[in-house]
Amino acid sequence: MAKSVLTPQATDFPRWYQDIVAKAELADNGPVRGTMVIRPYGYAIWERMQAEIDVRIKAAGVANAYFPLLIPESYLRREAEHVEGFSPELAVVTHGGGKKLEEPVVVRPTSETIINSYFAKWIQSYRDLPLLINQWANVVRWELRPRLFLRTTEFLWQEGHTAHASAGEAREFALKILSDVYEDVMVNVLAIPVLKGRKTDNERFAGATTTWTCEAMMRDAKALQMGTSHELGQNFARAFDITYLDESGTQAYVWQTSWGVSTRLMGALVMVHGDDDGLRLPPRLAPIQVVVILARADEGAADVAVTLAAELRAAGIRVELDTRTDTSFGRRVVDWELKGVPLRLEVGPRDLAQGVVVVARRDTGTKTSVPLAGVTAEVTATLDAIHGALLEEAAALQRSRTVTVGSLEEVEPAAASGFAVMPLSALGADGETTLNRAGLSVRCIQSADGGLPGPDDGDDASLVAIVGRAY
Amino acid sequence: MAKSVLTPQATDFPRWYQDIVAKAELADNGPVRGTMVIRPYGYAIWERMQAEIDVRIKAAGVANAYFPLLIPESYLRREAEHVEGFSPELAVVTHGGGKKLEEPVVVRPTSETIINSYFAKWIQSYRDLPLLINQWANVVRWELRPRLFLRTTEFLWQEGHTAHASAGEAREFALKILSDVYEDVMVNVLAIPVLKGRKTDNERFAGATTTWTCEAMMRDAKALQMGTSHELGQNFARAFDITYLDESGTQAYVWQTSWGVSTRLMGALVMVHGDDDGLRLPPRLAPIQVVVILARADEGAADVAVTLAAELRAAGIRVELDTRTDTSFGRRVVDWELKGVPLRLEVGPRDLAQGVVVVARRDTGTKTSVPLAGVTAEVTATLDAIHGALLEEAAALQRSRTVTVGSLEEVEPAAASGFAVMPLSALGADGETTLNRAGLSVRCIQSADGGLPGPDDGDDASLVAIVGRAY
Repeated sequence: MAKSVLTPQATDFPRWYQDIVAKAELADNGPVRGTMVIRPYGYAIWERMQAEIDVRIKAAGVANAYFPLLIPESYLRREAEHVEGFSPELAVVTHGGGKKLEEPVVVRPTSETIINSYFAKWIQSYRDLPLLINQWANVVRWELRPRLFLRTTEFLWQEGHTAHASAGEAREFALKILSDVYEDVMVNVLAIPVLKGRKTDNERFAGATTTWTCEAMMRDAKALQMGTSHELGQNFARAFDITYLDESGTQAYVWQTSWGVSTRLMGALVMVHGDDDGLRLPPRLAPIQVVVILARADEGAADVAVTLAAELRAAGIRVELDTRTDTSFGRRVVDWELKGVPLRLEVGPRDLAQGVVVVARRDTGTKTSVPLAGVTAEVTATLDAIHGALLEEAAALQRSRTVTVGSLEEVEPAAASGFAVMPLSALGADGETTLNRAGLSVRCIQSADGGLPGPDDGDDASLVAIVGRAY
Repeated sequence: MAKSVLTPQATDFPRWYQDIVAKAELADNGPVRGTMVIRPYGYAIWERMQAEIDVRIKAAGVANAYFPLLIPESYLRREAEHVEGFSPELAVVTHGGGKKLEEPVVVRPTSETIINSYFAKWIQSYRDLPLLINQWANVVRWELRPRLFLRTTEFLWQEGHTAHASAGEAREFALKILSDVYEDVMVNVLAIPVLKGRKTDNERFAGATTTWTCEAMMRDAKALQMGTSHELGQNFARAFDITYLDESGTQAYVWQTSWGVSTRLMGALVMVHGDDDGLRLPPRLAPIQVVVILARADEGAADVAVTLAAELRAAGIRVELDTRTDTSFGRRVVDWELKGVPLRLEVGPRDLAQGVVVVARRDTGTKTSVPLAGVTAEVTATLDAIHGALLEEAAALQRSRTVTVGSLEEVEPAAASGFAVMPLSALGADGETTLNRAGLSVRCIQSADGGLPGPDDGDDASLVAIVGRAY
C-alpha cells in the first residue's frame, strides 16, 4: 500500500521534515524571509505546550507580565557582550507615524535590556527579592538560513527574568527552571529524553556567566538545543544599575537569571517522534488524543461512534469525531496518521456485529479489537503506554548512537553517527575550533555519571563533553 | 481617615486614571513613546480576560493560529481604503540583519492583508468554508497622544478573520461574535453594560462595509469603544483574489469578517468600576476574588486563616492569603482596596473569640461578621451579589446620563453630561462634522428600541444615533 505522502526519512531527512510540516498543516513560510505562519493544527499543539510550561513556571513562583516589543537601540549597547551577540540579527525600525525617528528602535531579539531597566526601578530593598518574571512573546532575529520552527526570523517563546540576593540563589533558581520546568515538560509531556549540562564559554548566551542547557537527539542523530537557562551574574545589574538595600543596610547589586524555550520545541517534536507516515504525537501533549472514525455511512455505527466519543470525553480524553464518510476511509486514516493522533478508534458495522471496535495505535501500528464496554479503560491504559513507548524509543536511539571516546582525534569519526562523549580535559585550548571546522560542537558538559557539573568543578578531570552535529 | 492615595475622580478624572494605573501596579510607560509595560497584577487580569474570551471564540468554532509580525509594505497597498486608514500609523523596518532591506516591511497594525494572502491559498472549494481563524497577537500603531491601555503604540489583542460563502452568513457570524463573545464577556464577566450598534460610514473600519460595535459609558460619562466586529464584504477577497468553487461549479469570491478586542478593555475595567479608593474588580474576572488577611501575628488566628483559605480554594474560589503582619493591617487594607479585590476576610483573635471573621465588600464597603462555619457559603453568595451590584451601578449611571433629544441643535448641551440619543434622520449630511467640531461623535446607530438595526433598514426613520464624547 503506497500510502506515504512524505519523502522517506532515510532518503532525505531535511526534505522529510519540510514535507511533514507542510502536509500535517503545521506551518507555512511567511512572505518576509524567515518568518512563519503557524497553522491551526500546529498552533493547537503549541497552545498545549504553552499550557504545560506555563503552569510549571507559575508553580515555581514566577508571575507573567508583558514588556514592549520596541526597544531603544541605546539600551542594547549597555551590556557589551550582549550587543555584540545580537547586533548582526537585529530588525531596526527607523520610521514611525510617517516620520523618521530621532533614535532608531529595534524589534526585541530578547528582552534582558528592557526588562532590567524596569527591575532597576522596581527593586529597592531585600524585601523585593527574589523578583521572578516571565513573558510569553514574539521576538525577531534576522535569519539567513531559516527553517520552519527550528530557525525563524520571528519566533514565539517565553522568556523568564529573575533577580536574587545571592549568586547561590540565582544558580539554584536557574537549575530549578532547567529541571522542574524544562526537563519535566520535555520528558514527561513531550516524551523527549534530554541531556542536561553546561555550555562551554564559546556557546554561552551573550551576557551570561553560565548557560545551562537541555539537548536532545533527533531521529537523524543530530542534536537540537531544546531550552536554556542562564546565570547572568551581575552583568546586567551593573549595566542597568539594579541595586537593593540588603538586610544590613548596604547597597548591593542583584544576581540574575534568564531562561527560555520557544516554538523550536515544535521542530523537536517532529524530528524526535515523526516517522515516514507523519507525526506521532505523545498523548499527554496531543490536542487530539483519540480520533473516533466512522468507517462508512451507517446509522447504527454512527450512533455508537457518537456515544463512544462522549464516553471518552467524559473520562477527560481529548476526542475528535470523524464522520466524513463522503471521503474514503483510507484517505482519512492517512490524514490522521500524518497528524500523529496517538489512537484511532475505527467504528464500522461489521465489527459492531461482533460487539467490538478496532483500536489502532499510531506509534506501533498495532490494531486490537476491543469490546464496546471496555473501550474507555483500554484507551486510557494505551495512551499511558504510548507515552512510555515513545520516550523509550527515543532514548534507545540516543543510547545506540552515542559513543565514548578518549581523545579529540577519535571524536570526528565517532560523532559521524551521533553523539561522542569525550573527557573535557582532552578538548584542549583549540579543541572547539577543530570540532567546529568539522561541523561539530560541544553540546554540553556533564559530570562523568551524566549528572550536572557542580558550581566549582570547572577543571574537574572527571567532566565530559558531549559532542555532536547540531541544528 | 485620609487613606486615599489617588487624586479623587471628581477633582481630575484623567489624573485619577493615571494614579490608579500606577498605584494598583497595572502598567508603566515604556521607553519608546506610547509603548507600555503590563505589570504582573495587570497582566493577571488580562490573562483572565483572555481565557474568558478565548473559550467563547473556540465555542463559536474558531481555531487559533499565528501569522507573522512583519508584513511587506506592498501588501497593505492592495486594499485602497485600508492603506489610507493605516499609513499614518505605521512603524517601518528598513534594516534587517545589518543590511538595508530591498523592500521595507511594516510591523503589523492589524493582519487583514497577511492573513488574507493565506486564505487565498487555503480556500479552494465550498468545502473549505467557512474558514474561521483567530490570533492573539501584539500590533503596533504609532500614537501621538498615548494613554496607558486606552491608546498605546503597541497593544495586545485578538483578531478574528473569517471567510464565508454568502453575505448573509458573514453578517450572521459578525453579529454572533459581537453578541455571544464580546457582549457576553463584557456584561457577564466584566460587569460592564454595553450598547450594541452599527458605526456610521465615517467611523467604519478602513476596508469594511459595515462595522458593528459595543460601546460603554465610563464613570466620567465619556464613551469607550470596547470592541468591534466588521463585515468586510468582498473587499479583501477581490484585493487578494480569494475565490472558491461553489456547489454549482462556479468560481466565486468569499464574503469576510474581522473582529477584535484589545488591552483597551483593561482601561474600561478601570474607568467603569474604579472609585477613589482604587479598582473594584468584578468577581468573575478578578485573579484574586478573596484576600484572607491575618490582622496581626497570632498563632491561633494564623491557623484559622490558613484553614479558611484552603476551604475557599477547595470551593473553586481564587484566594490570596496575606500573613504579612510586619506591615500594618491598615496599610495592607488600603493596598488590597487599591487592587480591587472583591472580598476581604479579616481574621483576628478578637473576632475569633466570638467565633466569627469579618467579611468586607470592596464594592460597597459593607462589613459583616460571619460565623466560621458559614464563611464559604457567605463568600460564594456575596461574590455573586457583587457582580450584579457592579453591573447595575454602571447601568444606572448610564441611564441617568443619557438624554433623548429631537434635533441636532439639542445634542451638544445634552451630550455635555453623557450620551444623547437623537433620530438618525436629524443628523443630515453635515451632522457628524458639526458634532466632531464640538468634540462629539456618533458612537453607534441603533433601532429606536435599543436593538440592532436590521440589514436593510439603512434609511429607516426609526433609527437613532447615540452621540457622546469618546476616548
